[in-house]
Amino acid sequence: MSTLPATSALPFKVADLSLATAGRHQIRLAENEMPGLMALREEFGPSQPLAGARIAGSLHMTVQTAVLIETLVALGARVRWASCNIFSTQDEAAAAVVVGPEGTVDAPAGVPVFAWKGETLEEYWWCTDRIFDWSAEAAADGAEWTGPNLILDDGGDATLLVHHGREFEAAGGVPEATDATSAEFRVVLDTLRASLERDASRWTRVAGDLLGVTEETTTGVHRLYELHAAGELLFPAINVNDSVTKSKFDNKYGIRHSLPDGLNRATDVLMGGKVAFVAGYGDVGKGAAEALRGQGARVIVSEIDPINALQAAMDGFEVKRLESVIGEIDILVTGTGNKDVVRVEHLLGLKHLAVVANVGHFDNEIDMAALESLPGAERVEIKPQVHEWRLPSGRSVLVLSEGRLMNLGNATGHPSFVMSNSFTNQVLAQLELYTRTDAYPTGVYVLPKHLDEKVARLHLDALGVELTELTPDQAAYIGVPVEGPYKVDHYRY
Amino acid sequence: MSTLPATSALPFKVADLSLATAGRHQIRLAENEMPGLMALREEFGPSQPLAGARIAGSLHMTVQTAVLIETLVALGARVRWASCNIFSTQDEAAAAVVVGPEGTVDAPAGVPVFAWKGETLEEYWWCTDRIFDWSAEAAADGAEWTGPNLILDDGGDATLLVHHGREFEAAGGVPEATDATSAEFRVVLDTLRASLERDASRWTRVAGDLLGVTEETTTGVHRLYELHAAGELLFPAINVNDSVTKSKFDNKYGIRHSLPDGLNRATDVLMGGKVAFVAGYGDVGKGAAEALRGQGARVIVSEIDPINALQAAMDGFEVKRLESVIGEIDILVTGTGNKDVVRVEHLLGLKHLAVVANVGHFDNEIDMAALESLPGAERVEIKPQVHEWRLPSGRSVLVLSEGRLMNLGNATGHPSFVMSNSFTNQVLAQLELYTRTDAYPTGVYVLPKHLDEKVARLHLDALGVELTELTPDQAAYIGVPVEGPYKVDHYRY
Amino acid sequence: MSTLPATSALPFKVADLSLATAGRHQIRLAENEMPGLMALREEFGPSQPLAGARIAGSLHMTVQTAVLIETLVALGARVRWASCNIFSTQDEAAAAVVVGPEGTVDAPAGVPVFAWKGETLEEYWWCTDRIFDWSAEAAADGAEWTGPNLILDDGGDATLLVHHGREFEAAGGVPEATDATSAEFRVVLDTLRASLERDASRWTRVAGDLLGVTEETTTGVHRLYELHAAGELLFPAINVNDSVTKSKFDNKYGIRHSLPDGLNRATDVLMGGKVAFVAGYGDVGKGAAEALRGQGARVIVSEIDPINALQAAMDGFEVKRLESVIGEIDILVTGTGNKDVVRVEHLLGLKHLAVVANVGHFDNEIDMAALESLPGAERVEIKPQVHEWRLPSGRSVLVLSEGRLMNLGNATGHPSFVMSNSFTNQVLAQLELYTRTDAYPTGVYVLPKHLDEKVARLHLDALGVELTELTPDQAAYIGVPVEGPYKVDHYRY
Amino acid sequence: MSTLPATSALPFKVADLSLATAGRHQIRLAENEMPGLMALREEFGPSQPLAGARIAGSLHMTVQTAVLIETLVALGARVRWASCNIFSTQDEAAAAVVVGPEGTVDAPAGVPVFAWKGETLEEYWWCTDRIFDWSAEAAADGAEWTGPNLILDDGGDATLLVHHGREFEAAGGVPEATDATSAEFRVVLDTLRASLERDASRWTRVAGDLLGVTEETTTGVHRLYELHAAGELLFPAINVNDSVTKSKFDNKYGIRHSLPDGLNRATDVLMGGKVAFVAGYGDVGKGAAEALRGQGARVIVSEIDPINALQAAMDGFEVKRLESVIGEIDILVTGTGNKDVVRVEHLLGLKHLAVVANVGHFDNEIDMAALESLPGAERVEIKPQVHEWRLPSGRSVLVLSEGRLMNLGNATGHPSFVMSNSFTNQVLAQLELYTRTDAYPTGVYVLPKHLDEKVARLHLDALGVELTELTPDQAAYIGVPVEGPYKVDHYRY
Repeated sequence: MSTLPATSALPFKVADLSLATAGRHQIRLAENEMPGLMALREEFGPSQPLAGARIAGSLHMTVQTAVLIETLVALGARVRWASCNIFSTQDEAAAAVVVGPEGTVDAPAGVPVFAWKGETLEEYWWCTDRIFDWSAEAAADGAEWTGPNLILDDGGDATLLVHHGREFEAAGGVPEATDATSAEFRVVLDTLRASLERDASRWTRVAGDLLGVTEETTTGVHRLYELHAAGELLFPAINVNDSVTKSKFDNKYGIRHSLPDGLNRATDVLMGGKVAFVAGYGDVGKGAAEALRGQGARVIVSEIDPINALQAAMDGFEVKRLESVIGEIDILVTGTGNKDVVRVEHLLGLKHLAVVANVGHFDNEIDMAALESLPGAERVEIKPQVHEWRLPSGRSVLVLSEGRLMNLGNATGHPSFVMSNSFTNQVLAQLELYTRTDAYPTGVYVLPKHLDEKVARLHLDALGVELTELTPDQAAYIGVPVEGPYKVDHYRY
Repeated sequence: MSTLPATSALPFKVADLSLATAGRHQIRLAENEMPGLMALREEFGPSQPLAGARIAGSLHMTVQTAVLIETLVALGARVRWASCNIFSTQDEAAAAVVVGPEGTVDAPAGVPVFAWKGETLEEYWWCTDRIFDWSAEAAADGAEWTGPNLILDDGGDATLLVHHGREFEAAGGVPEATDATSAEFRVVLDTLRASLERDASRWTRVAGDLLGVTEETTTGVHRLYELHAAGELLFPAINVNDSVTKSKFDNKYGIRHSLPDGLNRATDVLMGGKVAFVAGYGDVGKGAAEALRGQGARVIVSEIDPINALQAAMDGFEVKRLESVIGEIDILVTGTGNKDVVRVEHLLGLKHLAVVANVGHFDNEIDMAALESLPGAERVEIKPQVHEWRLPSGRSVLVLSEGRLMNLGNATGHPSFVMSNSFTNQVLAQLELYTRTDAYPTGVYVLPKHLDEKVARLHLDALGVELTELTPDQAAYIGVPVEGPYKVDHYRY
Repeated sequence: MSTLPATSALPFKVADLSLATAGRHQIRLAENEMPGLMALREEFGPSQPLAGARIAGSLHMTVQTAVLIETLVALGARVRWASCNIFSTQDEAAAAVVVGPEGTVDAPAGVPVFAWKGETLEEYWWCTDRIFDWSAEAAADGAEWTGPNLILDDGGDATLLVHHGREFEAAGGVPEATDATSAEFRVVLDTLRASLERDASRWTRVAGDLLGVTEETTTGVHRLYELHAAGELLFPAINVNDSVTKSKFDNKYGIRHSLPDGLNRATDVLMGGKVAFVAGYGDVGKGAAEALRGQGARVIVSEIDPINALQAAMDGFEVKRLESVIGEIDILVTGTGNKDVVRVEHLLGLKHLAVVANVGHFDNEIDMAALESLPGAERVEIKPQVHEWRLPSGRSVLVLSEGRLMNLGNATGHPSFVMSNSFTNQVLAQLELYTRTDAYPTGVYVLPKHLDEKVARLHLDALGVELTELTPDQAAYIGVPVEGPYKVDHYRY
Repeated sequence: MSTLPATSALPFKVADLSLATAGRHQIRLAENEMPGLMALREEFGPSQPLAGARIAGSLHMTVQTAVLIETLVALGARVRWASCNIFSTQDEAAAAVVVGPEGTVDAPAGVPVFAWKGETLEEYWWCTDRIFDWSAEAAADGAEWTGPNLILDDGGDATLLVHHGREFEAAGGVPEATDATSAEFRVVLDTLRASLERDASRWTRVAGDLLGVTEETTTGVHRLYELHAAGELLFPAINVNDSVTKSKFDNKYGIRHSLPDGLNRATDVLMGGKVAFVAGYGDVGKGAAEALRGQGARVIVSEIDPINALQAAMDGFEVKRLESVIGEIDILVTGTGNKDVVRVEHLLGLKHLAVVANVGHFDNEIDMAALESLPGAERVEIKPQVHEWRLPSGRSVLVLSEGRLMNLGNATGHPSFVMSNSFTNQVLAQLELYTRTDAYPTGVYVLPKHLDEKVARLHLDALGVELTELTPDQAAYIGVPVEGPYKVDHYRY
């Protein structure tokens, strides 16, 4: 996909149906692993509570996301979709969603998707821009609106585009890039500059249409709290990330599954007996460390927070600064959500052909920019998303997915069952914003606990779990309703 | 200790110094395992911030508690102490604390302690009453106060006595027991009735003296929130239980250690290969399940909360109702904080000589009252705290610690290192109430996060943990101070 | 690869160098993970102890095998190679070996390889036949020999072909197939029939040339012991499988790595929280069970041997007959080395879309033949090596690699580091047969313990392992040489 | 028990029945955990196959051994017993065995036992001498024999006494001790010198009576193989240690249970988060490492054998020489079977109050002799079997059980279920020697595999294990009988 695809209902060329057919097989299998979403289709399909909703989605365009998209549609919504990562799209899933279960290549009956595996940064932001262009739908409806009324976001790029678009429109123009502007933000500026040239009030109208955003990730949520603290948040936001059934499941159990999957697909490196270093012992790091230990690796952890550090120690892990053990490491994994965690000086200190992998968020966890500008460093592609960097020291390191999320770039992301938890939260959050709008003035919210428990409840039968029921007497004794919610808000699980 | 000891500075008879000497040895070893408390002595000893504090403590009188008590004293406080469980006192620790590091049997220089292993209920509540009698100290100071100005509580019995005492004094008398009154509450009523007879305004004055209480346990905290919700809480309370370094450490890692310890000391039952059932998958249940799995047991878990149930399943445990698997169980552990979790019908369904053990809170997790009144059931003492109950079915079960906390009754409770975390929180909480009184109007509080992180920080060196430090740039990137606190309040660890 | 390739030095068409180049990259990375083989090149390369050796290899043609082949060549041997499994060839590895590090497509300088991914049974046995045809090499040397002087075998197919070839030649012809003859054995008979027609004494001469075979697997070794017990073994055999550094490493740690890898690549099924059933608790089953538990699955094991069954129980696994729990299983793994372990009645009892995977040896662990002839069963290809079987019950099961070894068919087999252990044993065994021929009269042998320890020793540095050295005094105390071997032969590790 | 007890049927003073009654309770509970022994009583009790057997037993006199002794008696044998360790006797078990289920203090009806907790070396060897004195029994029977006809040994001390006794009798006298003679061997010499003075041909007659010995431990077995290799073994020996159901169960799963039990009873040290060092990764070390990891310790292992070292690495443990990490260790465990593993230089390098514990065999794993003679070292008894050694460095270490087996000295040894496996092997081995005498000429034997499998089989029901049965067709396919044995002799489990 080397050229920008045309703006059309079918956003990219599918030469024949084979890609979509393969994707449809996988979607069908994934549905079996996503009991939460399937239960919502059954519960809410008849009443169509999302009728009238126009959802702009920016989230890895995988098979699981296909089941999410088709669930939103089954509840009555209209949807436009982009990926939130240049490498994470599974093309067959995108094709299947575009074609739709009943459609054909020539008459697609699905959802407009703007995503493919291996986008350039320009293509990525063009795609993100596209999900805010609801002119075709407005024309079809004879409606006045410009954009969506809901955003479903992962990492906050869609939300960022709206906020900066409106900001620059208010300021009368897009600022020039400076030396300090990152390569990616230059593309954002260019994208918005082109938009303002076409229509100088577009983002202001888009922002006005929006009822809110539901955000998937730690990083995105962090941005939202900062925006809100600064008084700049434009619409209500639901923090899906901090639902227990998201953060404690997707982040931990998802990474536990997909980190070794990505390592295996990318390399032939045995984990058993090796020294693996995990930077960060939050939920992501906990899942990573457990997975690596489960494969017989010796895991060393780093942490900045003394509480998490103490947890890591109590869980039996060695806790050290990266500098202290750099020469022993075979597999280096970052999962912090911070930047510059692995710097060039670290890369230079690693063993020959050590593997470097990021499961945090952005590619700046590993300082890829500095590596790319390191004199004497040479990049050799072993296969797509696996690069040997030959360093001036004479040693090499293997960098996965160019420092971006390797569980998406080298594997297929979290498995469906885990994503079913996250995405059931997403759908419930979209329902909250759309059907209980008044309950959410501008601000950042987590879902109420009874919905969090509902998400869990919808996933128990598939695992053969029997839930014990409180007697009324027992419920009274601990002061909770028999049917829940069962815990105080500050309970940590 | 079969008779009520005299009210005296030395609350029970120590025939010679051997018990106190043995306790002092253990206290010295425990100090090496309690780096948090020792660090507080070093930091705050010189400034004596607890000078003037009068602390009534009700918490298992173990070796670790001895280090806590002596830390409070080292910070300037005066202390009186009772245990919060009839079986949990380690007599040598009590003796050593009474005698004090410099004292003798004839001239004890330590702290008045009212606790011994194997109290009757009458003795227990008498002891609890004693810690509120500061008349000797008041006389020595020429002061007017009746009781303590701070409570350090575990389970809430001390707090309960004050609240009921004041309530009955306000009502003009203690109500009669009814058929529905539990055996234990009858003793509470009797204890208060005697108190009111001696002094009809004592508890009202005690309540008036109090600056607040710091509470150790889930159960006690639950009572406090209920009292506050009902508008009946008499003074501020700090919920120590929900400090991360308490609930996530003491409850989980403490039980992980002390459950198998108690099982081993009580019985000769191999855990490996056996079926262990753990009721409840909160922090206590998580620690219990991990410990049993670590010994090769096959662990089945029960839960009422779908989120915790899903966690248990994702952690690889079978999740079933107790009824479904009762006939397979070799070791049955309760850690729910609820009542009637194991009922007589369950006990009758267990395998011959199955072990029944409670690490939750009260002895009503297992319905001991119903067992005791079961026709045809016979109790045979194998050794103290280990009883074979011969059931009418012809089978027997082994009940540990008469259904009370077996990790205290059959072992020595949580190990010192874990308790150092909990107790460092306790001391910091006492400091908050005493030195920052205005910051805590009547209500229930958790400690601020920077203190929670401080507790963790004080325990890292002893484990050889290296903490990674944020650069100012990284701190700014994620929006936290370099020195912490690092997490939002709702972060779950 | 749909037509039989021509008999040539380059056994199959490589359109351009890209496949070989990709393979060479992977071989280079694998060399970094195979310290045992690289150490042998360093130790024995100069002295060329395998000069004159002609090795017919039948073993999965993977990247790791490429490093093995090139090690044999580096020690002086000439080699011809086939795969021992129709699905296990990695085409890029085969291409790279054929081309050789210095060769080109037009002037290959490597080793003749007869293997590609997805052979038919006819092609498979044609390939196996080809590794015994050393006429081109004989012509080049002006030599009289017909075939190889050494076999390196995996599963015993190459050895079987020689034994049956010689047997039928002695009998004067190949017997007719009967109704009881399996589909695969019919192909063997056809292959030999064609051979006898061309040359009626070829296999007799081949057998006469052979100094022996080194066998990789449990199954192959089992056949060899049976042949020897029946007095029919034609040449000495070294049982590489039962070197500790093979059976306890390849079988256990290899499967621990490659089973989840295969499951992940084949399906999107989360292992965490699922019920996984592992048939067999030998080394393969132990590795499988550990891997699945390490991913949070609940693992149930079956066993026929009471000792292994007791081990499984003591390791914390539930041990049940497959029939007893069939309806609970999400992932069903076979690793027994026996046949008919999973039968059609089991497949019909599984949950919808349960995954069925074999890591034992032959595809008859799962009764694929019966499934294929089940009326009403329909096979849908999800993707290569992943088939949904729609059953008459209305449910489906997902069968991986058509019941053959899924860690090879769906993943890339054991990782290099594990194979380095196995293959270092193979090279040492080839060296024993070729350079110490007199020490091995016809019979089946394991490698002497000092070589087994040597294999381990060559892999320690790469893992940062420090070995403790005995003092002469300590060695004398336990009666072993300071430099080993350290254990009695019956020691079980 | 500070004086040598009188030679009598009741070898030591039992003031009243309370000790024996407590022991009898525990024996009854242990019987529930020893299904193998109870099944043998049921199978062989009626036929009395050990009628006429006179067994001298030297094995830790615990509750489990009581069940073993009473099983031997139930099969018809007469028995005399000593412990094989000065600290390991459980006095209540000894008392109960002496008194017997039906006896009284005044009329004991059990077995003569010569063992109590805390023997001196002189007492220990006196006790061992006593089990060879069957004069009372001979007199009662009017028989001519001097001693037992079978030995049941643990560590080989009983066997050693016979061999040295006969050797010195043949030499005409006991040699003088030299400077190189160990303190313990001086006691052996004194014991034999006294015996020769009383009766100069006693041990020659004892040796002549003996049909053989069954030996429990690695160390004892090692001595037997050495004796046999030197041509000095006097009678056949069955190596019970190397039954799979012994070495792989008792050594590994027993230590997994009893190591943490001993640590917990001895100290209040949390294992979680601590650095534990395990010297030796044989079966004992594997069990120790698993137990410590299961409690959240970070485990470092040392090994001399490269195969075991590689196993440790592949199991995820750091493998280092003790010297390399000595300053990081909190808990130091030896399980090697060798001497001088922990030397004074190591003890001086440990952290303050590090715990030092031996679960190998003799107290020379830790060089206690050198510690005892270290100038400036001071020993403080914290409690029995727990000593603080204050070192000249100013630091202390805690040494458990004076360097002897701490799982016996600080805890109660392996749990009953594990010992049931070992002891069922012992009984079967005694049966082999006594009833199939001709099958065992002088030499060292392991039990035939079908008996090893039988031991396992007798323990499955108690764990709820379902064994899968081979079909005749499957059995034929892998070439084993349907009912076993299933494995070749070199199979490693």
